[in-house]
Amino acid sequence: MSAIKICLAQLNFKIGDFEGNTAKIADTIFTAKQKGADLVVFSEMSVCGYMPDDLLDYPWFVEKCEHSLDAVAQSCQGIAAIVGGVMRNPHKGRNLQNVMCFMQNGRIQKTIAKTLLPTYDVFSEARYFEPAQETDIIEFKGHKIGIAICEDIWDIYNDFEYNASPGSKLKELGADIIINPSASPFHLGKQSLRNRVFGGQASRFDIPVIYANQIGIHTELLFDGASRAVNSNGEVAMQLPDFEESVGYISFDDGVITSNATLPIEIDEIATLHQALVFGIKDYFKKMGFKKAVLGSSGGIDSALVQALLSQALGNDNVLAILMPSQFSSEGSITDAKKISENLGNEYHILPIENIFNQYTEALSSVFEGREFNVAEENIQARSRGVLLMGISNKIGNILINTSNKSEMAVGYSTLYGDMCGSLSVLGDVYKTQVYALARYINKNHEIIPNEIIEKAPSAELRPGQKDSDSLPDYDMLDEILKLYIEGKKSKDEITMEGYDSSLVERIVNMVNANEYKRYQAPPIIRVSSKAFGKGRIMPLVAKYQ
Amino acid sequence: MSAIKICLAQLNFKIGDFEGNTAKIADTIFTAKQKGADLVVFSEMSVCGYMPDDLLDYPWFVEKCEHSLDAVAQSCQGIAAIVGGVMRNPHKGRNLQNVMCFMQNGRIQKTIAKTLLPTYDVFSEARYFEPAQETDIIEFKGHKIGIAICEDIWDIYNDFEYNASPGSKLKELGADIIINPSASPFHLGKQSLRNRVFGGQASRFDIPVIYANQIGIHTELLFDGASRAVNSNGEVAMQLPDFEESVGYISFDDGVITSNATLPIEIDEIATLHQALVFGIKDYFKKMGFKKAVLGSSGGIDSALVQALLSQALGNDNVLAILMPSQFSSEGSITDAKKISENLGNEYHILPIENIFNQYTEALSSVFEGREFNVAEENIQARSRGVLLMGISNKIGNILINTSNKSEMAVGYSTLYGDMCGSLSVLGDVYKTQVYALARYINKNHEIIPNEIIEKAPSAELRPGQKDSDSLPDYDMLDEILKLYIEGKKSKDEITMEGYDSSLVERIVNMVNANEYKRYQAPPIIRVSSKAFGKGRIMPLVAKYQ
Repeated sequence: MSAIKICLAQLNFKIGDFEGNTAKIADTIFTAKQKGADLVVFSEMSVCGYMPDDLLDYPWFVEKCEHSLDAVAQSCQGIAAIVGGVMRNPHKGRNLQNVMCFMQNGRIQKTIAKTLLPTYDVFSEARYFEPAQETDIIEFKGHKIGIAICEDIWDIYNDFEYNASPGSKLKELGADIIINPSASPFHLGKQSLRNRVFGGQASRFDIPVIYANQIGIHTELLFDGASRAVNSNGEVAMQLPDFEESVGYISFDDGVITSNATLPIEIDEIATLHQALVFGIKDYFKKMGFKKAVLGSSGGIDSALVQALLSQALGNDNVLAILMPSQFSSEGSITDAKKISENLGNEYHILPIENIFNQYTEALSSVFEGREFNVAEENIQARSRGVLLMGISNKIGNILINTSNKSEMAVGYSTLYGDMCGSLSVLGDVYKTQVYALARYINKNHEIIPNEIIEKAPSAELRPGQKDSDSLPDYDMLDEILKLYIEGKKSKDEITMEGYDSSLVERIVNMVNANEYKRYQAPPIIRVSSKAFGKGRIMPLVAKYQ
Repeated sequence: MSAIKICLAQLNFKIGDFEGNTAKIADTIFTAKQKGADLVVFSEMSVCGYMPDDLLDYPWFVEKCEHSLDAVAQSCQGIAAIVGGVMRNPHKGRNLQNVMCFMQNGRIQKTIAKTLLPTYDVFSEARYFEPAQETDIIEFKGHKIGIAICEDIWDIYNDFEYNASPGSKLKELGADIIINPSASPFHLGKQSLRNRVFGGQASRFDIPVIYANQIGIHTELLFDGASRAVNSNGEVAMQLPDFEESVGYISFDDGVITSNATLPIEIDEIATLHQALVFGIKDYFKKMGFKKAVLGSSGGIDSALVQALLSQALGNDNVLAILMPSQFSSEGSITDAKKISENLGNEYHILPIENIFNQYTEALSSVFEGREFNVAEENIQARSRGVLLMGISNKIGNILINTSNKSEMAVGYSTLYGDMCGSLSVLGDVYKTQVYALARYINKNHEIIPNEIIEKAPSAELRPGQKDSDSLPDYDMLDEILKLYIEGKKSKDEITMEGYDSSLVERIVNMVNANEYKRYQAPPIIRVSSKAFGKGRIMPLVAKYQ
C-alpha cells in the first residue's frame, strides 16, 4: 500500500454544457498530473451538471453524457480520475443510473451507480434513476477505495432511515477510504449538518471520508462547495472554500489523510447568507449570459437590500433603479430611494405612476362604479410598476430582479403580476427579520443602505398612511410562526402550544395556505433555507387545508 | 366459493376534505349494503384524495388520514369495503405508505401497501412512500382477492419495465380476481391505453381485473373515472361513464364477472377533449368555491373558445367578457368579440386601452427615447389588459381565466404577466390545431363561435397589420414539430429526419427552450395530453440546451 496523492476538484459546472464542463474537467486533470497527483476526484454528475431535470428524458442528452465520460477518460493517462455523469441502465427498471466512473489508462475502468436516490424537498432522483443493485470497490495502488455518491453517505441523516447503508457495505468490502462525490446544495445550517455527517460517518466506519461538491447556481439551487477530507477521528484535514472554484491536494497513507492546506475561516450566519446571495446573483447572470439588472426601488428595505446585493454582485454600473412613486408615496420614500442609488452610484429614473393609475381607474369606472377603494386599486399600482419595469427590461435588456421577501411571499403580502414580477427572486427565501440583519451587515463599515430605510416602519404605500403592521403582526413574531409552519411542518395546534396566540396562529397559517396560488406563479427563488418556496415545497391548489 | 356482489364506486374526492370524503364513502357503503352488495371498492387514496403532494409532509394530515380510515371501517357492518389512504410506515425507509384497507366487521382487517410507486411525468410517489415489502392476498367468502394499487398493474406498460410484477405475485398466491383501485389521470389516448392494459393484464394473469378510478380536477390533474370490470378473456363486463360520479354493481362467480349494465358509448377525440375541459372548469370552480369567471375577449379564436367552454361549464350568466381594443385592433375583432358574447348571452364590457398605453409610453419616454417600437410596446399592451382583468377580478370577485394555447405557450408567443395571467389555463395543453377542431365541434349544431373568428388569419394585433404567420410557421406544421419535441422527446436531428426543414426545426426547438422561463411562471394548466407543461415537465432555466 503506497501513499497516494489525491486532488479534490470543486468546480462550477453548467447544466448541459458538455463541451465547457468536459474541458474544465480535462484541464483540471492535466494540471493535477503536472502537480504529481495520482487521482482526481470530481463532484456528482460532473459532465452534465446537477440537476438537468427532465432534460434527462431526452435520449440525446444521455448520449452526450455518455460520450463526454468516454472523452474525459481518454485524458486519464498516467493519472486516474473519478468523474460523474448519467448512463443508461443496462438492466430492468428505470432507464438511467446516476454514476461515477473510475478512469485510468485512457478508459473507464469501473462504473459505480448511486444506491440512495434522494427524492424529497428539492430532490427528485427516483424520477430518473434506478438504484445500484450491488456495491463494488475500486482497487488503486494497493488501496481499496469505496465510492458513496452524495446521498449514499446520508443513510441515517434524514427524517427517515434508509433501508440500505452503502457506507456499511463499503466498509464490509474492506474499503480503506470512502470518496463521496456530491451535489449538495447550500442552505443556512448546512455546514454544521455536514460537520455532523462527515465526522459521524468517518468515525462510524473508522475510515477517512472525502467529500467533493460542486459550486454554482442551478436555477433555484445554490451549491456552495465546502468540499473536504475528514479523517477517521472526525477531524477535517482539508477543506475548500465556500462558493469558489478551487482544487486541493491531500496525501493518503496508512489510513490517514494529511494536507498542508489551511482550513477556511468560519463566518457567521448573516455573513454566509450575504456571501450566498451575492454569489447566487453573480453566477445566475454569468450562466444566463446577462449583464445588467433593473429593479423597482420603493425606498423600502427589501428593494434597498436587493439593490445593494445586485451592485455588489454585478457592479454599480450594471444596476438600474426605477423609482415609481404614486400619490400614496411619502416624500421620505422618494428621498430614501434616491439616496440608496446615490450611495451605490447606480443610475436611476423616476417614473411617477399617478397618471397611469388614474387612466386605469378611469377605464374601469363603469365596472368599479359605486365600489370602495380596496385591494383592487392597491394592486393596480403594484401592477402598473410591474408593467413599467418589464417594459424597460424588454426595451433595453436589463433583467428584472424581484424584491419580495419570504415573509411577504408566505402570507401573500405581495401582488401577483405586480411586485411579484421578475426573472429571479433574490429574497424569496429570506425572512423579513433576516432582511434587516443583512441590511445592517452591509452597512457594517459605512452606510450604504440609508439608515432611514432600516429604521422606518415598513409600508407598501398603496393607500394613504398604510403600514405593514396594520394587517400583519410584528415581523419578529410573524417570522417565528412562519418558520414553525414552513420549515418545522408543525400544525396550528402545535404552534399554539409553543406559546403563540391561537387566533394569530390560525390567521397566519390560513394566510399561508390561501396564498399558494400566488406562489405557484412566482419567479425562481434562490434557495438559502432548508425549506424554500418553489420546487422543494409542492402544494396542491385545489384542496381543503387544515 | 360463493358468488359475490361487488359495488364499484367512482367518486369525486377533494384533497384534504376528510369530512366530506369519508361522508361520501360511508354513504356509498350504506347504499351498497341496501342494494345487497358484499363488497364496495373505492379508488386509491380515497379518504384524502389523490394527490395531496407536500401536505403529506405534515404529520397532522397523515393522522387525519389514518383516523378517517378507522372511522370508515366502523361503517362496514354486514358489508366489506376496500378503502384507500396513506399510513405511517412501521418499518425503516420512507415515513409513509400508500395503502388500501380491507374493512369488515367494523374494523380494518388487512392493509395492503402499494409496490410500484410512479415517479415520472406528473407522479412523484417516491417522494413520500416506501414501497410494499411483501405481497398479500385477501380471503373473502371463499375467494382470494388480490389488490394491485394503480401503478401495480402497469408493470410492463411504461417506457421502462419495473423490476417487480405485483400482478404476477398475486397470481402466484392464488388470486382469483385482481382489484385495482386507482388514481389514474386522464389524457387523450388514455382510454385506448387502458383497454390495452386491463385487457392485457386480465388475459396475462387469466383472472378478471376490476379497476376503480376517481374523478375530478386536482390542480392540474384531471381524473376521468372510466372505472371498469374486465374478464379474463379481456372483455369489458361493466364500465362506468367518464367524468361522472357513478357506482356500478357486478357479480363475480366461478371466475367470471357478470353485469347487466350497458357500456358507455365511445366518443371521438375532440368530443372527449371538449367533455374533459368543460368538466375540468366546472369542477375547478366548484372545489375552489368560485362561481363567476372573467376573461379577456380579443375577437380571436382562443378567447372565443374559452368563453364558450366557460359558458357551458358555469352558465352564461357567470361569464364576464372584457373587450380591450387598442389602436391596433381591427374593427372586425371588436365586432367578432361582441358577437360571441351576444351569441352566448354573456355580459361584456368594452374598455379601450389606448389611453393607458399612451400613458405608459409617455412615462417611459425618457428611457425609450430614440428606440424603435418593438416587443416592449407590444407587451405593454398585453400587460395593460392583464392589469385591467386582474383589477376587475380583484374588485368584483370573478376569477380570471387564462386563454393561451399550448402552441403559443410552447414557442413563447405570449406575454408574461400579460395574456399569461389567470388562475387557471384552460387551453395550455391544447394545441392551436385542436383549438380550431374544438371550435368547429362546439359549432356543430349551430353557430356559437362566429365563423368569422374561425376563418380569419390569427393575429395578436399588437402592431399594425400583424399576423401570427409573420413570425410563426403554419400551425399545422408548428404543432407537428412541437408534438415530436414535447410529447415525442425527439432531438432536432430526429425531427428533421421525419421530413421537416432543419432550419425550421432548429428555430422552433430553440424557441421552446428559450421560453422555459415564461412557462415557469404560468398558471396551472388543465392537463389533457400525455405531456403537459407544468408539473409533468420540469426543465432547468439555468442550462445550456441542445
